[in-house]
This record gives sequence, structure tokens and C-alpha cells, in this order.
Amino acid sequence: MKIAAVQFAPAFGEVEANLRTCRNLVSSVEADLYVLPELALSGYLFESPEEAHSLAQDPEGSEIGAFADLAAERGSVIVVGFAERAGEAVFNSSVLVGPDGRRSVYRKIHLFYPEKDVFLPGDRPFEVVEAAGVRLGMMICFDWIFPESARSLALQGAEILCHPANLVLPYCQDAMVTRALENRVFAVTANRTGTEERVGKELTFTGLSEIVAPNGEILAKADTTGEAVITAEIDPGRARDKAVTPRNDAFGDRRPELYRLD
Amino acid sequence: MKIAAVQFAPAFGEVEANLRTCRNLVSSVEADLYVLPELALSGYLFESPEEAHSLAQDPEGSEIGAFADLAAERGSVIVVGFAERAGEAVFNSSVLVGPDGRRSVYRKIHLFYPEKDVFLPGDRPFEVVEAAGVRLGMMICFDWIFPESARSLALQGAEILCHPANLVLPYCQDAMVTRALENRVFAVTANRTGTEERVGKELTFTGLSEIVAPNGEILAKADTTGEAVITAEIDPGRARDKAVTPRNDAFGDRRPELYRLD
Repeated sequence: MKIAAVQFAPAFGEVEANLRTCRNLVSSVEADLYVLPELALSGYLFESPEEAHSLAQDPEGSEIGAFADLAAERGSVIVVGFAERAGEAVFNSSVLVGPDGRRSVYRKIHLFYPEKDVFLPGDRPFEVVEAAGVRLGMMICFDWIFPESARSLALQGAEILCHPANLVLPYCQDAMVTRALENRVFAVTANRTGTEERVGKELTFTGLSEIVAPNGEILAKADTTGEAVITAEIDPGRARDKAVTPRNDAFGDRRPELYRLD
Repeated sequence: MKIAAVQFAPAFGEVEANLRTCRNLVSSVEADLYVLPELALSGYLFESPEEAHSLAQDPEGSEIGAFADLAAERGSVIVVGFAERAGEAVFNSSVLVGPDGRRSVYRKIHLFYPEKDVFLPGDRPFEVVEAAGVRLGMMICFDWIFPESARSLALQGAEILCHPANLVLPYCQDAMVTRALENRVFAVTANRTGTEERVGKELTFTGLSEIVAPNGEILAKADTTGEAVITAEIDPGRARDKAVTPRNDAFGDRRPELYRLD
């Protein structure tokens, strides 16, 4: 199968324009799975929860519906980050839409600091979604720094980590190589680019979206700026083989009885 | 305090000569903590458990005693990897010797594949040792690929990961940056160099010993070959501060109730 990371700079508050950009980029390259950035429709630097709420989407609403239509049209799976409206609350979420119309939502569990003023933290465990015959796990941006995120997904059988991001620190892209290696899974980090200057802050996002193989090989990598759709042809079955050596298994060799993780 | 990683190529089976090399390298540079490679006294490629047993040391015996003398003489802590004789069994262990004569042993929990024919796997949990006013955690070589190793030590309060290694794969040195970052601890990887050709195998060890800070900065790094003692002046108190940002804490932000680690 062919998997893709879509990188671009969402325009703050311009939901319709960002949706068009997403559609154009997805339509520009054939793939079976597209991963798009975190908060791809709204932008990042909200001044208040109310502002985030006003720019948020209902997972069953028309904007996410447009992604479902796109997925159906292309026979593909799409994962995209968005501000999720849930009653009065807003979560920093991602949705997986399948060609069959399914929509699965992940609510970011580990919020990065400006987000703590705006979003509620995720309230549901890491979960694997089966779509197009592949087992997919979603994690968002800062979730990377907690090894438990990728580990939870991989131990539940995720073959591909779908990782929408709005990264501003320089560490994650290298760390995702470790995440792929230690869990023997594919990892698709779709990061945004561009700069946002709002609410007295200025953030520049680091791009360098990447696709990593279970052996740590970087299969594709984007630049630090600009739009890109990077792709890799993969066999997801590789992620079911946890062999590190002929006699070492990344999961079978674990010794939970000797760990102290409380 | 000043911490050091000692890198060299142990000569297979030459316990006395390797002990002299260790003594000379440790004595060549002042430090408060020295970390030496895995199996530093015996070499790596044993043809049988019996051969390993014949080249192994009792933690209370004279060879480890020589390290205790060296630690007392220099007022330092020394961590060194060795084949541990325990009755009829042999473990791939490391010992921490303090200037006060204390000896603490860690038995490698995750054996790399040629080791599975020779050693018993570690039978005791990851544990933190307090020495010279600092909290130290030992892990050995291949333990790196399991995020639970460093995590177990850090969650128990380790400030410095002492990591003797005989690395042959090229991934660990980069991954230790992630281990330091995700746990906000110092990490000292003391890797060996040289090539061993025995029992129908040939292994070349990758050197590149390194000292990493809690923010992922590589404070010192050795070459791929040869002997080296690399050092860094550090404040171990930095590892007690788990702040990633002013409002993110690497430990406080964990959400164990949402992880699935079984």
C-alpha cells in the first residue's frame, strides 16, 4: 500500500480555505492512506476556548463530512487533526475517515502548554482502528514525548502510527525513529509549516514531515518549509513481525514483571 | 560533578590485562563517576556457558574488589560490566562500586541474541542506587530498545542512567537522546570498540560512547574506534526538574489511566 504525509501551513481561522488546501493536496497524489497535520482546519494559536469553539468542528458535521466524501471518492483512508466541538467543550482531536464512511476520533491525551488554556485533555484511552485491512493508531504531536503513547498503540496491534503534528521543538522527528524501532511499526508524522503571530506569541512550525519504517529507516522526509505530499510504498505486514534479530522479539522479550512503571 | 564514559576494546579472555586497561583509563582522568563498557573484563563472544563461567567474576571477589579499591582511592563511583558468576549460573551484569566500599549489582534483563546461549536473563527489577549523593540507574546495552528500562529507572528517581554497552547495531546512540529527553535524565553510554572473531562469528563494536543531558544535548561523544575517556561537568539536580515547558512536566503530564501497556 502507499502511505502519505501531507504538509502545509494552515491559515489561522480560514476553515474553508484550509479545507480546500487539504482537498487539493490529497487530490494531487494517489495514496491509500493520507495523514494531515494537527488542527489543519483552524490553525493553532487560539486566544480563548471560546475562539477555539467558534472555529471547531463536529465530527459528524459537514467539514469532516467533506473529508469522508474525499476518502470515499479516492477509496482511501484520511487522518486529519481538527478542533473538535463536543457540546460546550473543545478537544484537540484527529479523525480517521474510511472509504466506507466510518469516522473514528482520537482526543489528544497530552496537551502542549498553550493548548492547556484552550482544550480539554483527551478522556479516552489510546485505541487501534482497523481500516482498509490495516490496523492504525492515532497520536497527536506532543504525545510523541511520552513513550507510553506509541507503546500503547503498538501493543494493541497498530501497524502504522498516524501522527498529525504542529511541532515547534526540534526533537520529535528524530525521536519518531526510536518510536518506530522500539515498536517495530511504521510511523507517519504529518507536521505543519509556517509561522503564527497571535495573542502576543510567535510560533514557527518545523515541517520535516516524515515516514519511518519498523527498522528505523526514514522512507520519506519533507523540507522545513512549504507544502509537500511525501509518500512511501510499504507492506504493513512488516509491522506484524516484531523480530529485532533472529532471536530477539521487541514484544516477546519484554519483562513486565521486572519493570516499575507506576 | 564530573561524569565520564570509558571506551576501549577488551581483549577476549584476558581478564588481568583488561583490568589493567580499565585501571589505566580510569586513572588518566579525574571524575566523580566513571561508566565502563559491558563485559569489560572478559570480552563478548563466548563459545559456551562453561567458557563464560570460567571467565566470570564473583561480585565479592578480587577483580571487582580491585574496582572497589580504585573507587576508594579516587573517591569516585565506578560502574563496570562483567560476567557475573552466581553458583553454577552466569549473568551479564554490571556492578556499581562506591568510594565507601558498597557494591550493587544489576543483572541484564534483556539479553541480545548470542547472549541467550550463555547467560541467564536478569531476575531482579530495575533499581536505583544512591551513591555519592546522586541517584544512579544501571541498564546494559540492548536494554535501550525497551523504553520500559530507562522509564523504570527514571520513575524511581534515577538522575543518571549508567549504560555499559557492547553495541553492534547503529541505532542506540541516537535513541539514547530520546531516552534522556523523554525521562529528563542524564545518560552515560560507555560502549566498547574493536572486533571479535570467534565461534564462527565476527562482530565489530561501534564505539561512539556518549553523555547526553536531560534536554537531549550531547555533552560529549567518542569516536567509532580506539580508547577514550569522555567527560562532562554536570549538575545532577537538573534531572530532578521534569519540566519540558513552563507548563509541561514529563512525569506529571503522564496519563497512566489512558495507557494500555499489558
